[in-house]
Amino acid sequence: MIDIIIVGAGAAGMTAALYALRSGKSVLLLEQETIGGQVAISPRVENFPSLKQIKGSEFANNLFEQITALGAELELEKVIEIKKDGEIFTVVTDYNTHQAKAVIIAAGVKHKHLGLPKETDFVGHGVSYCAVCDGAFFKGKEVALVGDANSALQYSLLLSNYCPKVHMFTLFDKFFGDESLVKALKSKENIIVYPDTQIVGLIGENELEGITYKNKNGEICEHRTEALFIAIGQLPDNKSFVNLVDLDKEGYIIAGEDCATKTQGLYVAGDCRTKKIRQLTTASSDGAIAGLAACAYITNLGIQK
Amino acid sequence: MIDIIIVGAGAAGMTAALYALRSGKSVLLLEQETIGGQVAISPRVENFPSLKQIKGSEFANNLFEQITALGAELELEKVIEIKKDGEIFTVVTDYNTHQAKAVIIAAGVKHKHLGLPKETDFVGHGVSYCAVCDGAFFKGKEVALVGDANSALQYSLLLSNYCPKVHMFTLFDKFFGDESLVKALKSKENIIVYPDTQIVGLIGENELEGITYKNKNGEICEHRTEALFIAIGQLPDNKSFVNLVDLDKEGYIIAGEDCATKTQGLYVAGDCRTKKIRQLTTASSDGAIAGLAACAYITNLGIQK
Repeated sequence: MIDIIIVGAGAAGMTAALYALRSGKSVLLLEQETIGGQVAISPRVENFPSLKQIKGSEFANNLFEQITALGAELELEKVIEIKKDGEIFTVVTDYNTHQAKAVIIAAGVKHKHLGLPKETDFVGHGVSYCAVCDGAFFKGKEVALVGDANSALQYSLLLSNYCPKVHMFTLFDKFFGDESLVKALKSKENIIVYPDTQIVGLIGENELEGITYKNKNGEICEHRTEALFIAIGQLPDNKSFVNLVDLDKEGYIIAGEDCATKTQGLYVAGDCRTKKIRQLTTASSDGAIAGLAACAYITNLGIQK
Repeated sequence: MIDIIIVGAGAAGMTAALYALRSGKSVLLLEQETIGGQVAISPRVENFPSLKQIKGSEFANNLFEQITALGAELELEKVIEIKKDGEIFTVVTDYNTHQAKAVIIAAGVKHKHLGLPKETDFVGHGVSYCAVCDGAFFKGKEVALVGDANSALQYSLLLSNYCPKVHMFTLFDKFFGDESLVKALKSKENIIVYPDTQIVGLIGENELEGITYKNKNGEICEHRTEALFIAIGQLPDNKSFVNLVDLDKEGYIIAGEDCATKTQGLYVAGDCRTKKIRQLTTASSDGAIAGLAACAYITNLGIQK
């Protein structure tokens, strides 16, 4: 039997593997899409300590090589269900059934997309879903942003610190975030809000050059910009695990800093956990904590030989 | 006035600086000893995601270059006191007085040393204070360990997974850790305990080759080993901050995952915070969280122009 199954081979899952493997445990990672998760599609990472600048795909590849050198196994399978019978976890995927002594869920989240043509092509070429990650690349430039809840408000405030103007497009004529953030935003003269608007198109060949939006009179307008930050929400996908974990109202798995779920031996790491800050650094930290916790759990279980 | 003063330029402090600077804030780091903190003296780091193998000093230098390129300022000063008057923090050092809108304490901890001749020289050459960090370098080899509380118990169990024998030296004939750990340790046939012993010397030229210890009859014995893990405790040094933060009974600054202390605008990041796992990954995560929290605090404060 495998010691630890890790659901998701993003930064959190692979860091959990790194710690578990270095602690002498066997590890199987199950990934349904891309190795590396979100960071793999990020063209430029500059906010990870000691790595001045790295492509997200390179970060992911390095980490993957790091864990395969230690003996990590990977299967490209989608997890359908996790069951616990006695002290044994059974993980059912679309192709297989695996057993393990401990399981770490590191399934990540997805950023909601506007669903516009070329949106995906422009990621890293003007379109970003994370101002904390990518905002600094547009220091000194005017930027655009779409969204009306807390992330959008926070991103606007952040960008307004170093961008001369932040053009903020909202679907309605109000915000849906914390009052303190709305108040802070209103005090910022360089945040220009475009209420009752809907972004309908992206302009540009290889790099974003502008957007088109529909105003409240139904007219189509053009706005030139090199950067569009899309902050319209994130989608965790943890429904398959609800028999063993609790979800908050947004669908994140409820767990504290110790990454422990309500089921003994089952841990959660990274963006799919309830937390405030979702960054590469915080995902890696969760991975280390969950990896070590799973190892300690197995040791104390006394079932490993 | 500076936006954010960071006390300590280790991994946590420098990552906090990285996030704050990228958010457009000005940052002053105050460091009393070594840039990089604990990692700077670690000869080999292999458990940080995407960095297969790096010298600790190189990690520290990279991170330092990363933040100085963004405009971080550093002063080699020891912080004596932090005061808050209204919304302004005043940080008094042995040489100077600085003011800031927010402060992050990232003062780290020190591992207790045995105080033996050559102990410091052997760090990275057989002597280690962290089995989680360095244990994997001795896979398949017999190792020695000194200590009798939770860290020592956890390290022994960890090492016993991949070392044929773990020779554990304890000052008394009992352990001072959790019962479950003691029980798990007793079930491990490859952990050999040497009770009532005191390590009195380290053998070797450039690499550790063995130790000498005094047994309970006062006889000096020699034990050959390539590795000695010293797990006799850690020393946080947060007394200078007690006017603004609460300490737990071991001296760590009480704060949760959000890194917020009881004083608004004052955050704590890294090993000096109350937490279970103290690793480079968890320090970096704290840095990101505290850095962003300090930025958000300043923005909501509305005092920056």
